[in-house]
Amino acid sequence: MATEQDLAYLPLVEAARRIRDGEVTSRQLTEVALERAHRLEPQLNAFITLMDEAALADADAADRRRAAGGARPPLLGVPVALKDLYDTAGERTTAGARIYRDRVPARDSTVTARLRAAGAVIFGKNNMLEFAYGEVHPDYGPAHNPWNLAHSTGGSSSGTGAAVAAGIGQGNMGSDTGGSIRQPAAWCGIVGLKPTYGRVSRAGVVPLSWSLDHCGPMTRTVADCAAMLAAVAGCDPADPTAADRPVDDYVAALTGDLRGVRIARLADEARAATPETERATQAALAAMRAAGASVTELPWPDLDDGSVALMAILYAEASSFHEEWIRTRPGDYAEPTRARLEAGLRLPAIDYLRAQRVRAAVGRRYAELMTRFDLLVSPTGRGPAPRMGPPQDAPRTGGGDRLLGAIGWTGIFDLTGMPAVSVPSGFTADGLPLAVQIAGRPFAEGAVLRAAGVVEAAAGTLGRRPPLE
Amino acid sequence: MATEQDLAYLPLVEAARRIRDGEVTSRQLTEVALERAHRLEPQLNAFITLMDEAALADADAADRRRAAGGARPPLLGVPVALKDLYDTAGERTTAGARIYRDRVPARDSTVTARLRAAGAVIFGKNNMLEFAYGEVHPDYGPAHNPWNLAHSTGGSSSGTGAAVAAGIGQGNMGSDTGGSIRQPAAWCGIVGLKPTYGRVSRAGVVPLSWSLDHCGPMTRTVADCAAMLAAVAGCDPADPTAADRPVDDYVAALTGDLRGVRIARLADEARAATPETERATQAALAAMRAAGASVTELPWPDLDDGSVALMAILYAEASSFHEEWIRTRPGDYAEPTRARLEAGLRLPAIDYLRAQRVRAAVGRRYAELMTRFDLLVSPTGRGPAPRMGPPQDAPRTGGGDRLLGAIGWTGIFDLTGMPAVSVPSGFTADGLPLAVQIAGRPFAEGAVLRAAGVVEAAAGTLGRRPPLE
Repeated sequence: MATEQDLAYLPLVEAARRIRDGEVTSRQLTEVALERAHRLEPQLNAFITLMDEAALADADAADRRRAAGGARPPLLGVPVALKDLYDTAGERTTAGARIYRDRVPARDSTVTARLRAAGAVIFGKNNMLEFAYGEVHPDYGPAHNPWNLAHSTGGSSSGTGAAVAAGIGQGNMGSDTGGSIRQPAAWCGIVGLKPTYGRVSRAGVVPLSWSLDHCGPMTRTVADCAAMLAAVAGCDPADPTAADRPVDDYVAALTGDLRGVRIARLADEARAATPETERATQAALAAMRAAGASVTELPWPDLDDGSVALMAILYAEASSFHEEWIRTRPGDYAEPTRARLEAGLRLPAIDYLRAQRVRAAVGRRYAELMTRFDLLVSPTGRGPAPRMGPPQDAPRTGGGDRLLGAIGWTGIFDLTGMPAVSVPSGFTADGLPLAVQIAGRPFAEGAVLRAAGVVEAAAGTLGRRPPLE
Repeated sequence: MATEQDLAYLPLVEAARRIRDGEVTSRQLTEVALERAHRLEPQLNAFITLMDEAALADADAADRRRAAGGARPPLLGVPVALKDLYDTAGERTTAGARIYRDRVPARDSTVTARLRAAGAVIFGKNNMLEFAYGEVHPDYGPAHNPWNLAHSTGGSSSGTGAAVAAGIGQGNMGSDTGGSIRQPAAWCGIVGLKPTYGRVSRAGVVPLSWSLDHCGPMTRTVADCAAMLAAVAGCDPADPTAADRPVDDYVAALTGDLRGVRIARLADEARAATPETERATQAALAAMRAAGASVTELPWPDLDDGSVALMAILYAEASSFHEEWIRTRPGDYAEPTRARLEAGLRLPAIDYLRAQRVRAAVGRRYAELMTRFDLLVSPTGRGPAPRMGPPQDAPRTGGGDRLLGAIGWTGIFDLTGMPAVSVPSGFTADGLPLAVQIAGRPFAEGAVLRAAGVVEAAAGTLGRRPPLE
């Protein structure tokens, strides 16, 4: 007999199989997810909205559908949640912002609709940094890291990181503009994939910076990540930036070793990882080598120029979206967000265009790099989740903005649009998760996930659960 | 025996045929072009550089190549010239600017190289407005309209308009960011085609505003325009914006009538054309109707919003390219250009991004329009070439910039990237050329040129030559 915890931590693909085979019902899993979410919410603050009634009705409908026979979509009955910037028809979508506190979209985002079409039961909307722009809004407060409640989850997909790590729901979707999927995935000990720019539709997703925004899955296992991506990827008439390109079989791509795979380990000469992070990264590289890959160490190209370019693009595009509100409702933003948005209003167009030119040059350099290497590997960040500090002061803007540090080793792949996954690589002596980042060629999500699977198997992190109960 | 004038005005396709058939030599035609250019230069000021020695050597090489037999490229031996912003290896390329007075590029632009590969003899570089940005630089002075030397040629492809109209060379290439091919084509009584954005490579062409710049042919006949486009169109690894899309047979596309073609006559309710312009436009529409087309009158969508958006994009992108020089060498620019570039330095990024959003919305509206219509027709401009005024003062910048008037009815198709041709539609009582503009779907240059051929035939303008001799 499975315990409640066993059901809670059931991988998404295993949950889907058990529902299909009648070993568990959607209602059982959805009740576990909701009960757990409510019970842990005082500690985690991981949700902005829990949709008990609608989710249980959807779960019962899924169970009836299964009982009726006929076609069964791949995620039938599986409870998943969403970062609270994916529009959900008739269910409020706040983007972690006071300005959107009462916003109830009329239609589902494309991702929401595709998850529903795949049979998933959407049970909640996760806490996040305000408008995904780096800061907690006091109306919602910070999410807490399940591995140590005094530590940060990272952001901006903060509640998603906390919920998935705490075994609340079988899968989740985050968004990533400078690292907002991969940083919380790394700090919360889960898998987070930023797919290729254009691989997943952004229609109905509250934008931060449209030339940099990516939607992607956050899950407990690499296989779950592949299954979630398969459910949501693909072109979309409602999003002209969504790529009109066939979707690979990401689950099948996980099978096999890494023979012939050429890996570049990217090394940042200006910034070192913590010794524990570096050791875990070396172990991950050793596992990939053992699976047949070759590894070459390489100085990290264009890291600083790329980060500065990303910041200029982010400032301009975010302030463009927020222009009206930042002029009329500045007090409704968290103070650091307000300061950042007002600085963005003043950014000259020539700075934005210079950044786009740098971006094009960086893109050419990485395209050249990917003719010589198949994957790029680094730690996801310099160290594990830090302790949460007191509420932050206004950031110094531009080059002094602390966001520049946060985008660290992740932002470069938002800039180039290449797929990049963060996968757990071990734990610190204090029990905090560590992670590596694996990036690949545009639309080579399968190759990236296969390598992530090798790291996941070698790291032996799958069975470990945060000390919540 | 052909007179010198007959050879001068020989259409490009006819010149190519006669050279191929041995009826005339490349040297003869090239000597006519050069002699004529030198003789008329005091009146027209149409050239910045004439390449006598190199051109005659190329002409002799073409004649030897013909004599030797073997493959004969389509433009073998035909003398053509280029707006002086197409790079020519070893031959200075000034862009009509003091800043580039002594600039000698090491390599040909892609267009230059393709014309050479097609066998053309490049004999000169045409006068133009400084950096194609709307103003005459005093170092080069204005070109004069061959139909009346006291009148403007239009710009920025000013020298190209004058030279082609005056029978100097068999073809030419201009560039168009807000109307810089079509306005001088209209005012000088020649054919000017702005192809689809991405149809012709811009590698090695001095940029004005890279998201708006288009390269295209300026010729005396529609058939010549099709032949020039065929020689230069196509994808180019050196220009990532060049479309990777097969090149149609534009010459073959000229054959046939307009049965089933749905034309929208676009009407600007805020600005009227002169009565003579309107009459000539009605005659052109009647000719197209007689050839089988249907014509519907339609209010012109998004004209004002589109023009303002184009100006913001132009200001930002131009000042981005010129940033270094406008800060260090402001006195080397013509005064109105300097004022415009300095205003562009101050344009906020959010204004640029708002303009790009307007552009996207306008693009969607025109895409929808082109599901109901095949061609859009209007006068190219409100009237014939005006008298040249005294040197201009600094323009009022932004919404008050006189460029906003100049982009009038042409700029909207730079914004949407649709192909648009200006074709002569008649003459005023004072002997100044009139013209209509015909725009079509992206990459439907063939359809646009076919309709232009119908107008050309009906207008009966082909035999008429400017009163120069």
